[in-house]
Amino acid sequence: MTATLVGGIGELVTNDPTLGDGSPLGLLRDTALVVERDRVAWVGPARAAPAADLQFDAGDRAVIPGFVDSHSHLVFAGDRAEEFAARMAGQPYEAGGIRTTVAATRAATDEQLTAQVARHVDEMRRQGTTTVEIKSGYGLTVVDEARALAVAHQFTEETTYLGAHVVAPEYADDPAAYVELVCGPMLEASAPYARWVDVFCERGAFDVDQARTVLQAGKAKGLIPRVHANQLGPGPGVQLASEMGAASADHCTFLDDADVTALADAGVVATLLPAVEFSTRSPYPDARRLLAAGATVALATDCNPGSGYSSSMPLCIALAVREMRMTPAEALWSATAGGAAALRRADIGRLSVGSRADFVVLDAPSYLHLAYRPGVPLVTAVWQAGRPAIG
Amino acid sequence: MTATLVGGIGELVTNDPTLGDGSPLGLLRDTALVVERDRVAWVGPARAAPAADLQFDAGDRAVIPGFVDSHSHLVFAGDRAEEFAARMAGQPYEAGGIRTTVAATRAATDEQLTAQVARHVDEMRRQGTTTVEIKSGYGLTVVDEARALAVAHQFTEETTYLGAHVVAPEYADDPAAYVELVCGPMLEASAPYARWVDVFCERGAFDVDQARTVLQAGKAKGLIPRVHANQLGPGPGVQLASEMGAASADHCTFLDDADVTALADAGVVATLLPAVEFSTRSPYPDARRLLAAGATVALATDCNPGSGYSSSMPLCIALAVREMRMTPAEALWSATAGGAAALRRADIGRLSVGSRADFVVLDAPSYLHLAYRPGVPLVTAVWQAGRPAIG
Repeated sequence: MTATLVGGIGELVTNDPTLGDGSPLGLLRDTALVVERDRVAWVGPARAAPAADLQFDAGDRAVIPGFVDSHSHLVFAGDRAEEFAARMAGQPYEAGGIRTTVAATRAATDEQLTAQVARHVDEMRRQGTTTVEIKSGYGLTVVDEARALAVAHQFTEETTYLGAHVVAPEYADDPAAYVELVCGPMLEASAPYARWVDVFCERGAFDVDQARTVLQAGKAKGLIPRVHANQLGPGPGVQLASEMGAASADHCTFLDDADVTALADAGVVATLLPAVEFSTRSPYPDARRLLAAGATVALATDCNPGSGYSSSMPLCIALAVREMRMTPAEALWSATAGGAAALRRADIGRLSVGSRADFVVLDAPSYLHLAYRPGVPLVTAVWQAGRPAIG
Repeated sequence: MTATLVGGIGELVTNDPTLGDGSPLGLLRDTALVVERDRVAWVGPARAAPAADLQFDAGDRAVIPGFVDSHSHLVFAGDRAEEFAARMAGQPYEAGGIRTTVAATRAATDEQLTAQVARHVDEMRRQGTTTVEIKSGYGLTVVDEARALAVAHQFTEETTYLGAHVVAPEYADDPAAYVELVCGPMLEASAPYARWVDVFCERGAFDVDQARTVLQAGKAKGLIPRVHANQLGPGPGVQLASEMGAASADHCTFLDDADVTALADAGVVATLLPAVEFSTRSPYPDARRLLAAGATVALATDCNPGSGYSSSMPLCIALAVREMRMTPAEALWSATAGGAAALRRADIGRLSVGSRADFVVLDAPSYLHLAYRPGVPLVTAVWQAGRPAIG
């Protein structure tokens, strides 16, 4: 079996607290790791590194686990740059803008959608993302939701059925019938390509009873719930996520004390998406309150053409530190191990023996530079499943 | 003479208001331009493009003038990532931290400093910056200031003598003697490598009389003034810039009405550095007030290891739009033509006949994406002085 020795690691973030400095990041210095097939086979001091067939030199730079972006909406066509500019000039963000993208997405060919996802997944990889979750939700017909998931499934196992993104325009006068469609034939056609079921539980989208119905139907088909919750105002989304045993409640901007407690007690990951608050000029979620309560926090991009079209996990880290007062260590953990927790994955988001060999070499001596050097493309090499993908 | 036809330009930002849509950006669609030697020789509709020896296809993407980063401090050694992390945990930014970098810079060899500047200039170029101003100010001895400028001068004509960054530690008890040094032998040794003279006129650095003395001495040696003004609190810096006919007053966070009027009336460019406010968690300057008064606004990075270690002009644009409510068009203009105005350059920051052929191809259909897609590395090709430098 071919083994590759990755040496010259100035600083290694393992996210294994039994390693290194004993912090959640499990920080090691002057380290090497050995990759066999798609896995990390050995981690330890550079001076004790075993012989290997191949060598890769990290040049004394920092190496971190690949980012796990646990919330994105990459299957779409068109863009909404003009809407963005109007919003920056004072127009508020409302969920209804989603329908603009629905029309463009339905009109696109399979080839166009596939090319668009490929382009964005590649753009993410160049920024250090090695696992991405992708949702449907811009089709809103049986055929268009199923094809969105079929397209997404070519790029990731982490596909999420979001037929319940907004009520399809054809059903504006009969949302109950739309919920029936989402829970019936649309789910039937989509489930073969999906691991997760998600619902946008928010004023202007779906109320708590509709949302519960959707999640229950998805669960009955073997999908695991996640919820868009408490983004635009206070609401029942987080409590529903807790009640349904969801893996993650995403956004979490408007929480009361019971919501925070529910997330911590139910082990529902609070997935924060600060690039959306940046791009909609909205208040940021209170990460410190969630961390203080013992909730698990993930950071993700929410990359989508409406509320936030950034694919940059490094930007999310910089915003988490600047705007949400997470420490650089907490932010990096949330962007890697936190994302893995939100996807209930034990094999990614860390770099210890047995982990998938997904890692990023930064053009920096320390992971601190991700927050210290905002906007700067610091990713110089990316390995995915044991192979060099970038650099 | 070899001519290159740059075709397939989906959207061209010329910054020439006599072209295209008549806005300050002088926006053209489906355009071509011809490059001869280091200049733009022709701009016009793609269908009317003349024949040329070589072809370059922009792939229907947006093309903008190269960014003009008119304020940076690239000649330094060491980093201050730990100080950054401490600041994000609540410690305030003060000018005194500069002395940490002074010690590291003095200890570095010429080769180390040159390699560091080369690395950062390359990093900037990959992000679309084709002209960068570089200041001294981490030497603070005759020898160390002169060598900082000699190093910087290898990379740009836009070098700025900033012996008056802070009082050198050796002169802590006798700032008057330090000002004499700055205006005497240090200036003498530095002037051959500098175009500009700058002073940090702020509590904790230099008062207005000291600052005036420094700028007058620089002017007498043929250097043109610029001023670090009104960053940390209200102060006399902007008025001094106006009185001295400075090209630019930089920071401009704490202004009163008379300051705003002075900038507009004296034609002093207000150079805003929002990446510093981002990295110090400080209030952003009021760009709208400056624009409403008719002042010329430039955006620059201030890239330095203390108050803001970003080299990213796209981040500055995104912050200007999000935090300072500039329109995407105003922000792009300020990051290109505005920077050129701050450097009193008519040949850069625009793309019309006779301009230097410094341009950037974005992986986007419109310049709007610079603000719409924050953190995403959108620069796919960079031409500098008529030659492909990146991509």
